Amino acid sequence: MKKAIALGILSLTLATAASAQVKPEDQIKFRQAGYSFMSWNMGKIKANLEGEYNAQQVQAAATAIAGIAGSGMGALYGPGTEKDIGDRKTRVKPEFFQEMPNVGKLATDFNNAAANLAKVAATGDKAAVQKAFGETGETCKACHDKYRME
Amino acid sequence: MKKAIALGILSLTLATAASAQVKPEDQIKFRQAGYSFMSWNMGKIKANLEGEYNAQQVQAAATAIAGIAGSGMGALYGPGTEKDIGDRKTRVKPEFFQEMPNVGKLATDFNNAAANLAKVAATGDKAAVQKAFGETGETCKACHDKYRME
Repeated sequence: MKKAIALGILSLTLATAASAQVKPEDQIKFRQAGYSFMSWNMGKIKANLEGEYNAQQVQAAATAIAGIAGSGMGALYGPGTEKDIGDRKTRVKPEFFQEMPNVGKLATDFNNAAANLAKVAATGDKAAVQKAFGETGETCKACHDKYRME
Repeated sequence: MKKAIALGILSLTLATAASAQVKPEDQIKFRQAGYSFMSWNMGKIKANLEGEYNAQQVQAAATAIAGIAGSGMGALYGPGTEKDIGDRKTRVKPEFFQEMPNVGKLATDFNNAAANLAKVAATGDKAAVQKAFGETGETCKACHDKYRME
């Protein structure tokens, strides 16, 4: 647990350096793009689990999600991104920026779950994907419930 | 070459089935999200190549790009996505939908280049990444030049 938290904080810290080059409004745009694209892929996996199962499509979707999750999105929460910037709205709550150890833990949980989903999806085992998908969804929800406005 | 084109068409055809569940305006939103998130990651790789080289950051960025590129974005060009839908603007040219064999080839080129970039990035060899990055950028540009409005 301690290691997971440390990793989470580290990734958010590294992120800060990398975010220096990206304008705050673009950081908000890019992080929303990442979540949006992941949601499309989560939706595809869900549709496959509920209907005809195409292992190749599920694997591709899970790989995209894991790639985005592991890309260092903490860099997109730099200074100035706590609030709307003009037309660029954000639903992040102020607590997100005040509770970094917990945010780091949730981010690490999500990252691990997404990596596991991709690993499991590569086996083509639908039941295992169902489980890993549920676990990934829970890590999404854990952060949304706490740090995303309605 | 013939195989590459066939794969490109196949991926766009498969895509059409998968896109049935996603509203046209959301298809435009999701494809733009994918390109936007890739552009952030291309920017990070560029910054690493021009400045201090962080192999881990480059690898993560390249993995995200390859994951998105390989996720079946052809599904996001379904019927009804040729034009703006209300506030949801698109810069895709009509020719895109009329020249599927060529679009399929460009998509396959891009997909292959992105996969190679991720593979090379994992080695940490900066010079090789520089080359693979340039090649990937060229495949982006090939499609933008032909099928994206200014």
